[in-house]
Amino acid sequence: MVFVSSIRRAIQQRSRLFLPTPVHLPRESKSNSQSLLQEAAIVHSVEHGFPQLLPLGVRVLTKLKKVIRFEMNAVGGQELSLPAIGRRNMWEASDRWNLMHNELFKFKDHNEEYCLSPTHEEAITKLVSSVCKSVARSNYPLLLYQITWKYRNEPNYRHGLLRTKEFLMKDLYSFHRSEECAQQVYEQVCDAYERIFQKLELKCFKVPADSGLMGGSLNHEFLGISPVGEDTVLTCSTCGRGSLTNKPQCEHTEKVEQRAIELGHCFLLGDRYTKAFDAIEGSSDVTEDKKPLIMGCYGIGLTRLMAAAVEILTPRGSSDIRWPRRIVPYQVAILPPKKGSPEEANGNKQTLGRLLQLDNNEWFVDDRTELTIGYRLKDCQKMGVPIVITFGKRATKQNLCEVIDVYNNRTEYLSYEDTLKFIQDYYSVFC
Amino acid sequence: MVFVSSIRRAIQQRSRLFLPTPVHLPRESKSNSQSLLQEAAIVHSVEHGFPQLLPLGVRVLTKLKKVIRFEMNAVGGQELSLPAIGRRNMWEASDRWNLMHNELFKFKDHNEEYCLSPTHEEAITKLVSSVCKSVARSNYPLLLYQITWKYRNEPNYRHGLLRTKEFLMKDLYSFHRSEECAQQVYEQVCDAYERIFQKLELKCFKVPADSGLMGGSLNHEFLGISPVGEDTVLTCSTCGRGSLTNKPQCEHTEKVEQRAIELGHCFLLGDRYTKAFDAIEGSSDVTEDKKPLIMGCYGIGLTRLMAAAVEILTPRGSSDIRWPRRIVPYQVAILPPKKGSPEEANGNKQTLGRLLQLDNNEWFVDDRTELTIGYRLKDCQKMGVPIVITFGKRATKQNLCEVIDVYNNRTEYLSYEDTLKFIQDYYSVFC
Repeated sequence: MVFVSSIRRAIQQRSRLFLPTPVHLPRESKSNSQSLLQEAAIVHSVEHGFPQLLPLGVRVLTKLKKVIRFEMNAVGGQELSLPAIGRRNMWEASDRWNLMHNELFKFKDHNEEYCLSPTHEEAITKLVSSVCKSVARSNYPLLLYQITWKYRNEPNYRHGLLRTKEFLMKDLYSFHRSEECAQQVYEQVCDAYERIFQKLELKCFKVPADSGLMGGSLNHEFLGISPVGEDTVLTCSTCGRGSLTNKPQCEHTEKVEQRAIELGHCFLLGDRYTKAFDAIEGSSDVTEDKKPLIMGCYGIGLTRLMAAAVEILTPRGSSDIRWPRRIVPYQVAILPPKKGSPEEANGNKQTLGRLLQLDNNEWFVDDRTELTIGYRLKDCQKMGVPIVITFGKRATKQNLCEVIDVYNNRTEYLSYEDTLKFIQDYYSVFC
Repeated sequence: MVFVSSIRRAIQQRSRLFLPTPVHLPRESKSNSQSLLQEAAIVHSVEHGFPQLLPLGVRVLTKLKKVIRFEMNAVGGQELSLPAIGRRNMWEASDRWNLMHNELFKFKDHNEEYCLSPTHEEAITKLVSSVCKSVARSNYPLLLYQITWKYRNEPNYRHGLLRTKEFLMKDLYSFHRSEECAQQVYEQVCDAYERIFQKLELKCFKVPADSGLMGGSLNHEFLGISPVGEDTVLTCSTCGRGSLTNKPQCEHTEKVEQRAIELGHCFLLGDRYTKAFDAIEGSSDVTEDKKPLIMGCYGIGLTRLMAAAVEILTPRGSSDIRWPRRIVPYQVAILPPKKGSPEEANGNKQTLGRLLQLDNNEWFVDDRTELTIGYRLKDCQKMGVPIVITFGKRATKQNLCEVIDVYNNRTEYLSYEDTLKFIQDYYSVFC
């Protein structure tokens, strides 16, 4: 253990990380992500549709939240937090207590009936309604969002995180004094969604869709191609657009039919909810007739997106997760030589020591030096670590670091300084 | 608006922030924090025991999470995420399905019975039990925590965020191969708790307490003095220790009785849960008799702590929130001169322009220049902004910034450079 004696608290040790050997492995799942995420100890299980995320999974979600918050704040979104529990009379005001009956988990306490909210149009509109008389014009367009766990009584839960009863969702709601402004913000949020999926290296199709129980005049789904998806998308070989089978977007005839996963959904809701809750443009500086505000809502399921990204990016048949690089659990792993190997005895010590001194939350050292480099490298690949630094024969001889760019299947032999530069360049793109 | 024309996206504008005039103000609440938090638009309401947090409240919670995560990680905690919904058979294994019947929100779907979890001893022990055979020795002591919303069917919800049906809680669980190790970690986590409260500028008393339905051999509450608290603490004038009335900690006789709020609670649980779920020290490198693991659990309610801090730090009768400085919604507010005032016309422009160019998420500019400086300053004080930078007559004349240290009721006249230095010094302590 000579190599790891200088490890600072800041660098995390693989031997201390809670990465238990998986249990409850799904049998013959059609979903690639479900088994990959469980085998790499990202997710413990999604038994009965309720996800249990292990520490690596929480790291992924934390980064995904950051990517999404950045774009929501950039379009003027302000984050708040509404309760998961909603009262019956609120859900009756929009008639969804009945309309969504089968999807709602309902229960009572001593006096009242409640449900667990799968979405928050009612709660946010009620909130805005209660204060709209004092909201100044300068507050419009008003964009409010939250990232919270939602609940749906989903009998068809399946494919691990792709369809669950409990799921983490970002839901943004926008309120407007005019249809025109609502349209404009709708486009801006759709653009923000495209930037999010682009940052996550996911090709996606924006397609007009059905509004279902949500209501409203206009809505788009964002779809990512995957055989495990539950939607069918037609992609046009001529203009490249995608569409749902019943909603063609172009006149061309040559189209490819593929399965796709819904990654996000935007709705222009009109006054469906603002009318029900009497949310009007009521600020005292408005003297005209007071009309219901125009509303939009925009959702991304984070737990689903995390699994969908793995589903889409990981080649079929591969047992190594391929992440969007912005949300990998760790960016860099350092593998010191095996205990008793010639590489341990000869050199490296100083370079390795310097690497391990770096105060970096994105690196870990696989200090299980009783295992071969090869075994530990495979382990890193399984969980999708994009950069692995190790010290094989050649690197040791030349006093260099062996820097493995896992996703591009490329190895470089670099000095300590060039290794840092390599990683800095990588970070400037993906962190 | 000449002064605010150069505002970059990075600096947030008061006129755009969602700070609605409060509604649902509590009538004759004994709780100081409840009305203060609602009046400053930190919390929208806690109607029926379900908190609705406005954007400023989410900012406070985000910072509070950061303080707590730092200390949990420092003692070796790893963050995971368990579902809020728990199945009946799991809760029956510990007998708490019945024991906690009155506190649990219970419901059914098509096949099963569930509850909303107020705490996760069952879920975490079941998880550890399912993998303990493959957990290596190097993983112990195993410390796992989460920061998630919890649910309790609380008929006596009251005092705003202090006692709610839905609350955000950090719950840490520790698993040990020996009683001795459990004791040691118990002390370390208690110390981490004291550091957390110290960072939050809260004087607290660590007192032995009753274990209630949690079980276990040893436990301590962390109490903060406040008339709205539901515990009674005796503080000893001689040795300074605190104790609950039925659990004296010293032999001295001169004691002061005060009301106190529970800020945190630590339990050494022994094998109460690990026995029920068969969580044993089962790694293959252990050959001795396999015993149930020894367990500890440690909770801090974040929504309660946020309100308790306001309750404790804000002087009675004051209408200005006093926050722990690490968790204020914004650290700095900039107030440009009133429109049409001599201060607007004369100078300041360049200094103000430079301040507004600073890319800082912790500052906002109160751009409502139709209002007087005095009015806007009062508004900042109400929400507890610790540093306000403005430009009165004297500052304008001398081409300086007027830097108001709100919490210390002190004003300094500083050059642009010294203003930045002042804030940097402040940050080095509190950010």
